[in-house]
Amino acid sequence: MTRVATILADGRELLYFDDRPGAGPRPADTRDLPPREPRPEIRYDRVADEWVVIAAHRQGRTFLPPADDCPLDPSRPGRATEIPAPAYDVVVFENRFPSLAQGVPAPPGGLAGLGRCEVVCFTSDHDGTFAGLSAERLATVGRAWVDRTVEIGRMEAVEYVFVFENRGPEIGVTLQHPHGQIYGYPFLPPRVAQALRAAERHGACLSCDVVADEIADGSRVIALTDDVVAFVPRAARWPYEVHVYPRRHVPDLPALAPDELGGLLAVYQEVLGRFDHLFSAPAPYVAGWTQAPVTQHRDLAHLHAEVFTIRRTEGKLKYLAGSESGAGTFINDVLPEFAAQRLRDAHP
Amino acid sequence: MTRVATILADGRELLYFDDRPGAGPRPADTRDLPPREPRPEIRYDRVADEWVVIAAHRQGRTFLPPADDCPLDPSRPGRATEIPAPAYDVVVFENRFPSLAQGVPAPPGGLAGLGRCEVVCFTSDHDGTFAGLSAERLATVGRAWVDRTVEIGRMEAVEYVFVFENRGPEIGVTLQHPHGQIYGYPFLPPRVAQALRAAERHGACLSCDVVADEIADGSRVIALTDDVVAFVPRAARWPYEVHVYPRRHVPDLPALAPDELGGLLAVYQEVLGRFDHLFSAPAPYVAGWTQAPVTQHRDLAHLHAEVFTIRRTEGKLKYLAGSESGAGTFINDVLPEFAAQRLRDAHP
Repeated sequence: MTRVATILADGRELLYFDDRPGAGPRPADTRDLPPREPRPEIRYDRVADEWVVIAAHRQGRTFLPPADDCPLDPSRPGRATEIPAPAYDVVVFENRFPSLAQGVPAPPGGLAGLGRCEVVCFTSDHDGTFAGLSAERLATVGRAWVDRTVEIGRMEAVEYVFVFENRGPEIGVTLQHPHGQIYGYPFLPPRVAQALRAAERHGACLSCDVVADEIADGSRVIALTDDVVAFVPRAARWPYEVHVYPRRHVPDLPALAPDELGGLLAVYQEVLGRFDHLFSAPAPYVAGWTQAPVTQHRDLAHLHAEVFTIRRTEGKLKYLAGSESGAGTFINDVLPEFAAQRLRDAHP
Repeated sequence: MTRVATILADGRELLYFDDRPGAGPRPADTRDLPPREPRPEIRYDRVADEWVVIAAHRQGRTFLPPADDCPLDPSRPGRATEIPAPAYDVVVFENRFPSLAQGVPAPPGGLAGLGRCEVVCFTSDHDGTFAGLSAERLATVGRAWVDRTVEIGRMEAVEYVFVFENRGPEIGVTLQHPHGQIYGYPFLPPRVAQALRAAERHGACLSCDVVADEIADGSRVIALTDDVVAFVPRAARWPYEVHVYPRRHVPDLPALAPDELGGLLAVYQEVLGRFDHLFSAPAPYVAGWTQAPVTQHRDLAHLHAEVFTIRRTEGKLKYLAGSESGAGTFINDVLPEFAAQRLRDAHP
């Protein structure tokens, strides 16, 4: 794998990760881009005990552009996109409309939204999917994620690196081109913090117990290898939800040996493929990697992916309303054991 | 106000709350309803430290019926609805497809979803809105909420009573008729529990501090009376969000004197009315009352309403994806001070 770092016209970093050496030229970004002035801030809610990112400059961001104007396609003569090269394998670049960024000034009396927001393009094929990536490409994506987890973890203020993909307009995705995102947060996100508090009270990794129990029970297991297990959690929040774990206790993606990473991503990809075949059209999904925080509790956190869809039946979505968004309690209309059977049956 | 308790054909409770004495007959429910067999269960996620309600029987529930088949309209000859009477002011009844219910059996090796789910119809007018209720009706709704908070709080296993309204198909509301819901949970919902832990660490009510600070600052205040304040929280999670507080520290709706309740509901109603005029069409919203738990921490909890919309601009919604649903961190694209100004300007 090769890695080539470049700078876009407005000063943002763009990195090329190639499947193999010998890729073509990396032309300069010739666009006349306005200077970036992101001003995200973070605010703490004392009553709810929660950090919120306020990113008002994002209202003008690109929204479902037509396919022939996709900013994630390679550039062609006469049409410059976010990626100056005429072809690419995997690229990672700073989000033009970031929710968190390095070097932003603090607002008067407030706290700057220091952190990082990056976009990861998995393929130059506008109509591709993560499930359709070749094994070689999957390895390149994995090495890019490892690279970014390490580098973003070293950036100013970053406490947590979250690698995720949102797929589908039903879930608000504004660009159809296959891509993921990476957020470097300057605090522990609430779900991560709550899980770590529970592990701290328990005095050991709770995921190791759950992984062993799910394998022993078997009724919710979707995939099992010597090193990896994928299952619907017993208390799934979402209609169709799968957690993918390395069976060995490792804190994050960089802690995996290369062949372990390959085995984990192969099962992860298989699971995403099953979400493409649950319904007549590929299901919208959110897929995110829970990793250990940059500095705290690296012994208690157990790397895993959480994948879920908001589609509960062919024609219906799960909405978050009073119970979920107001009180924080999820009501799941699909029995997890039934969801597991449906997922086991869902394949090309 | 009068209160008349009745029983529907399948054994569910239905209560009439009348604006004034002398209302008409309460005919018996003549429908031939199948017996109810709700089997909700609750499951605890050890890793996330979170309760989830699994209610698989709800998949078949009524979904956006045509207006002439609304189950919340009064009954007419030849068309029996959930409300047997030919007219009503406010009715409350047990949800036919409950996420939580009294007397349900535990699944093998699991925990029953003991609790309560009720529906509250604010008016028999199918096309009405909460914002359009008369002052007399508003008082009846308030007394119904107080009655249910007290009674549900006494039911088996109930630890928390949550009174809320979901409005609008964009937020997944399956019935258009103006109505709210009441959930009696057998545990503290996560947002409530987290806020109470923060107050416990602080050693006093945090809301009392915030109420004083918001009134002193003024930039986010939407409405202010001698007894009530409504403001956009400084760290708002949603594009347009308003919290409505009694300025006096009270734990829940039943703790208010009748005239205090009237003053609070008048401001609450005014706020909901502003959500009807933010955009060209009434905004979808979730409005919920945060109350003290049934038994714990009644000194630390400060009653208030939280109202928010997922609409962020005329044509766009806020979606919850990787950051919000995956990690639990909200990104808000609208500056709370700007939202407050827009809400102050939004009225008929």
